[in-house]
Amino acid sequence: MRPSVDYSLYFCTDRGLMSSATIEENVEAALTGGATVVQLREKHCSSREFYELAVRVRAIARRFGAPLIVNDRVDIALAAGADGVHVGQSDLPCAAVRRLVGEGMLVGVSAGSVAEALAAAGEGADYLGVGAMYATGTKEDAGLVTMEELKNIRRAVELPIVVIGGINKATLGNFKGTGIEGIAVVSAIAAQKDPAAAARELLTLWKS
Amino acid sequence: MRPSVDYSLYFCTDRGLMSSATIEENVEAALTGGATVVQLREKHCSSREFYELAVRVRAIARRFGAPLIVNDRVDIALAAGADGVHVGQSDLPCAAVRRLVGEGMLVGVSAGSVAEALAAAGEGADYLGVGAMYATGTKEDAGLVTMEELKNIRRAVELPIVVIGGINKATLGNFKGTGIEGIAVVSAIAAQKDPAAAARELLTLWKS
Repeated sequence: MRPSVDYSLYFCTDRGLMSSATIEENVEAALTGGATVVQLREKHCSSREFYELAVRVRAIARRFGAPLIVNDRVDIALAAGADGVHVGQSDLPCAAVRRLVGEGMLVGVSAGSVAEALAAAGEGADYLGVGAMYATGTKEDAGLVTMEELKNIRRAVELPIVVIGGINKATLGNFKGTGIEGIAVVSAIAAQKDPAAAARELLTLWKS
Repeated sequence: MRPSVDYSLYFCTDRGLMSSATIEENVEAALTGGATVVQLREKHCSSREFYELAVRVRAIARRFGAPLIVNDRVDIALAAGADGVHVGQSDLPCAAVRRLVGEGMLVGVSAGSVAEALAAAGEGADYLGVGAMYATGTKEDAGLVTMEELKNIRRAVELPIVVIGGINKATLGNFKGTGIEGIAVVSAIAAQKDPAAAARELLTLWKS
């Protein structure tokens, strides 16, 4: 069945803002620093390039024992042998994704409200990404989720939750004691001069 | 197993150049005029929109007994219950697609050379789209295939072949007697003032 996952530090790639020359280097640095999950996000390359990249990043993640989650593209997740797929509210519905991947693959869903969280839980999601918590240039169209709504979502579902959107070393402290499982970051690792050191610091701060 | 397909008039959608208000209207008109296959191509909408559109277009195609093929997105083809998927050389490799869809779904591959045609045949393709035969604004990056190469491909593989790229009522006569199964068109139906009449004329000319 599906692997047990440590969601503490969930790293999402972003080719546009990364400090490294390649996605592979950026992912390897994040994992070296302690990232526990990698999500591969590619919106502007061909399906073939995305697939070949996913195969390479999967091999890197395997070396670190971290699951690789592919964003949006269920077909690429399946073809590349990824550990999971993550879908937002504008991607394939969670229920359809679960039918496609069966019981062996992780399915994550972006949820910004209790209603979306309950729907995802009912459709077989393994975890939720809740956000955006703060304004960020990474996903311009994401509506902000209040701390109150996050707490409501936490009460409503038992699924693991990671928060996303503007999470960095200055903001992560706000989520301690909320009962969520982890923090998801993009630029707080990807865009840093030393992404491994950045990951290490985030993980230390989150676990302290 | 896979349905037997009449490839005579293979219609590819294009939201950008269609004359109709909606893809659904454009597809219905093409089928009313006699299109025998519909390929749904969407490059710029969300996965959710593409999926929901594919479900609606599938229902239309079913009414006419025509197969619906989804371009590139194997996951959307599977989720929407399409009859097949079509991949180009920049999409998922044919062998990976066949593994994902099993034996029940059609897999088409774009081939511009004998080498690409043989590879597709070896990887389980059901048919080939060969082109672009003429320069067209529809796929700007497509290299042109000579009549000589088309004939070489025809000799090299037994798979059904449709030609694509600049096929219209003025050019389709060039492919009679080449032993190919059908013509694939975009603007010659989609962009015409009366797409049903355009499809009817193309089919009549092709079969005459």
